[in-house]
Amino acid sequence: MPSMGLARIVDRPDTKSGRAFDLLVQFLIVVSLVTYSIETLPNTTPSSRHLLGIVEGVIVGVFTLEYVLRVLAAERKLAFVFSFFGLIDLLAILPFYLSLGIDLRSVRAFRLLRLFRILKLARYSKAVRRFHRALSIAREEIVLFLCVTAILLFLAAVGIHHFESEAQPEQFASVFHSLWWAVATLTTVGYGDVYPITVGGRIFTFGILLIGLGVVSVPAGLVASALSKARAIEDAEQFEVDRDQAIAGE
Amino acid sequence: MPSMGLARIVDRPDTKSGRAFDLLVQFLIVVSLVTYSIETLPNTTPSSRHLLGIVEGVIVGVFTLEYVLRVLAAERKLAFVFSFFGLIDLLAILPFYLSLGIDLRSVRAFRLLRLFRILKLARYSKAVRRFHRALSIAREEIVLFLCVTAILLFLAAVGIHHFESEAQPEQFASVFHSLWWAVATLTTVGYGDVYPITVGGRIFTFGILLIGLGVVSVPAGLVASALSKARAIEDAEQFEVDRDQAIAGE
Amino acid sequence: MPSMGLARIVDRPDTKSGRAFDLLVQFLIVVSLVTYSIETLPNTTPSSRHLLGIVEGVIVGVFTLEYVLRVLAAERKLAFVFSFFGLIDLLAILPFYLSLGIDLRSVRAFRLLRLFRILKLARYSKAVRRFHRALSIAREEIVLFLCVTAILLFLAAVGIHHFESEAQPEQFASVFHSLWWAVATLTTVGYGDVYPITVGGRIFTFGILLIGLGVVSVPAGLVASALSKARAIEDAEQFEVDRDQAIAGE
Amino acid sequence: MPSMGLARIVDRPDTKSGRAFDLLVQFLIVVSLVTYSIETLPNTTPSSRHLLGIVEGVIVGVFTLEYVLRVLAAERKLAFVFSFFGLIDLLAILPFYLSLGIDLRSVRAFRLLRLFRILKLARYSKAVRRFHRALSIAREEIVLFLCVTAILLFLAAVGIHHFESEAQPEQFASVFHSLWWAVATLTTVGYGDVYPITVGGRIFTFGILLIGLGVVSVPAGLVASALSKARAIEDAEQFEVDRDQAIAGE
Repeated sequence: MPSMGLARIVDRPDTKSGRAFDLLVQFLIVVSLVTYSIETLPNTTPSSRHLLGIVEGVIVGVFTLEYVLRVLAAERKLAFVFSFFGLIDLLAILPFYLSLGIDLRSVRAFRLLRLFRILKLARYSKAVRRFHRALSIAREEIVLFLCVTAILLFLAAVGIHHFESEAQPEQFASVFHSLWWAVATLTTVGYGDVYPITVGGRIFTFGILLIGLGVVSVPAGLVASALSKARAIEDAEQFEVDRDQAIAGE
Repeated sequence: MPSMGLARIVDRPDTKSGRAFDLLVQFLIVVSLVTYSIETLPNTTPSSRHLLGIVEGVIVGVFTLEYVLRVLAAERKLAFVFSFFGLIDLLAILPFYLSLGIDLRSVRAFRLLRLFRILKLARYSKAVRRFHRALSIAREEIVLFLCVTAILLFLAAVGIHHFESEAQPEQFASVFHSLWWAVATLTTVGYGDVYPITVGGRIFTFGILLIGLGVVSVPAGLVASALSKARAIEDAEQFEVDRDQAIAGE
Repeated sequence: MPSMGLARIVDRPDTKSGRAFDLLVQFLIVVSLVTYSIETLPNTTPSSRHLLGIVEGVIVGVFTLEYVLRVLAAERKLAFVFSFFGLIDLLAILPFYLSLGIDLRSVRAFRLLRLFRILKLARYSKAVRRFHRALSIAREEIVLFLCVTAILLFLAAVGIHHFESEAQPEQFASVFHSLWWAVATLTTVGYGDVYPITVGGRIFTFGILLIGLGVVSVPAGLVASALSKARAIEDAEQFEVDRDQAIAGE
Repeated sequence: MPSMGLARIVDRPDTKSGRAFDLLVQFLIVVSLVTYSIETLPNTTPSSRHLLGIVEGVIVGVFTLEYVLRVLAAERKLAFVFSFFGLIDLLAILPFYLSLGIDLRSVRAFRLLRLFRILKLARYSKAVRRFHRALSIAREEIVLFLCVTAILLFLAAVGIHHFESEAQPEQFASVFHSLWWAVATLTTVGYGDVYPITVGGRIFTFGILLIGLGVVSVPAGLVASALSKARAIEDAEQFEVDRDQAIAGE
């Protein structure tokens, strides 16, 4: 069976050729994101656009080859096609083939589909797996505090609208306009496009910041502590694998 | 007793109809906040104002029904009426009925009363309960550090006023004006509406920031660690409840 | 001995009159800071200035009485006069009496001396004591990281000066001017009065921020963890005091 | 052997003269950085330039003496010359001697070489050693999260470009231009030179900030926790050294 030799390339990152193939795919994903960015530059010459098109073609070619190999290498082919990574691999190449038939280049949102290729990186990334685990540990609490943050932002917007809407009817026209101020302030970004000018609004800002800094920083702390727990679990699992191998090797 | 059947709706979130009723109330609270926000939009047409009025009427109707049911369902009716949630439920509907008698729509602050409905959410929210517990654990320390923060802000304002009041007599007119700069700077929001321009003021800003970042971030850290303690207590309580049930079930 | 009765007031915060006196002093310190701030307001009328003068006189009167009582109540009077709190108490009133003889009101820096009164609060504040303890735990490390922060700020200033001094000769005139940018950026205050506009400067900013956020946030973390250690020590001490009292009481 | 006496100066910080020499070198490094900064000032007079040249000459003289002494004091001279600190010591003086032969003062980047002297501080600094250790503990994770941060910044830039490029074609011309916004926003610096003005862009900013604050703050947390681990290791080593000395001294 010839597919078995090829299967080794896509399925066995522990072999030399498998590792090389993985690195190639990762490299092409990054190249693909860079070409996407270059295409957004305002003054691209026709010749450079032509070059970008060729690069895109080569990338899609390699990704198509990878997809075919993965399907061939899979024991249960249909299960792979409808798995998370199977769909992602398909989505990474499908838009290109569709755009060959119909001219979809003008549809801006369509080009965004190419960014799904970033998800292909998830296959190689320990960070994504750990994040996933950390989120499942702290999901309930993170949702809880996102709700609290949402309520706080709403109250901040209502309050500042109450104080500033008369002095600055443009910037603080409604609660919705004021929400933008609340987001920029409570995350401490503070662009400086909207800020309170009345005494009442400034005292209110002071008060809401004292409370808000504590609340807004909580989810970040939860993520950080969940990540360290996820790491401890990973280490424990690795320890067990190592021990089992050591016992088996005796 | 017919009230017993209805009591089940408001008092028993573990039954299907009780859960549905709870979700309806939560949904209406959110709708109520959204309509409040929409009313603040500058260009609302008379027809949309009319629609918002109807929505408000329906919401108050359901909340009134809920209030009556809760009173009926309560074993000690008077105790419920004067309990925290009893008063909140009343405050959520009272302004509407008052505004029917007298035209209070022109009084802007009066409309803010509607926001008390947000407190109704506290009945369903685990986050609020945990916050409450966390604050009671760390209350003394948080008050302590809010005082330290206040003193630091005051000293920052006095210092920057000393350095900048001559160069920028408008922005740093007095210690009170300078306090606004101190708040925006030490929380690292930094809107950019006021900033030091003298060499002395800039060096002072550098020094106060080095100290200030450490101090201002402490209360947030206290809240975060108190929350994790509160969670541990909750888990321990839950464990005891589960164990007692297991023992009782044996 | 009549001083013994008065000594009870200043030395015994566990008695009712002692507690009342302490609260009065704390209240007058805050009043004193507020009057200081009001005096900096640009448009104060002569009559309000007169009023502020009377308030200042009353405050100094009470503080003088307090000082005399503390000296009388002290067992070793000379030791108290030259102790930290003895000197602070003297500094809180001395400027006023000096200004009676000579007209020092015109000397702006002289008025700043009044702020030493804030240090009188240290006598009552647990927070100050805990901060003091926390700093002595983490002093060596905090100094270490302040040095690292200083070096990082210097390198950031040199780097941005290299990239931006040609494009913005005004804002980034020298390394000293660029230091202001470095402070505002690495503390994430970001006033927006100076920012890079060249591609090189922006990439440099990105790099230095990735490193800098980690470094600048370390001292704040050290303070927070030292404070929790200081608290643990306090609790342990309190436990021992309680136990000893319990044993003594048996 | 006369070099043995001199070796004591550079190699033995536990002797009095050795300690004095170390302090002199550290002082001259700082002086060197200050003169570097002064030279960047726009309005330096010829006489002050002359003075700075003399100071530079003296500093290079002392550093040359130090280099020669260290070579003489080293047991394996060649090994020292090609060691990290040997090369740094050479780089600290070489540019000066090269510039005597050829006039390299006009080459701006050449002057930056002088900053390598800052690395000489690493010999004395416990902070650098601890940082080094902490990074080797957390290296893998920090690299992981820098990758995640990079991907997040890229997605933020793509997203905001999608929403804002039509409304603000100047500021958000391409994904590369938008990256600058992403850096300034997700680090919460928020200069205010670029910010979203469309409703879609503002909602996107809100969403990416909620996720981003958690992600961007993780590396800083990893550094802080690695530093505390590095300190624990240092303390354990110190304990062992002390114990061994105590046993040896018995």
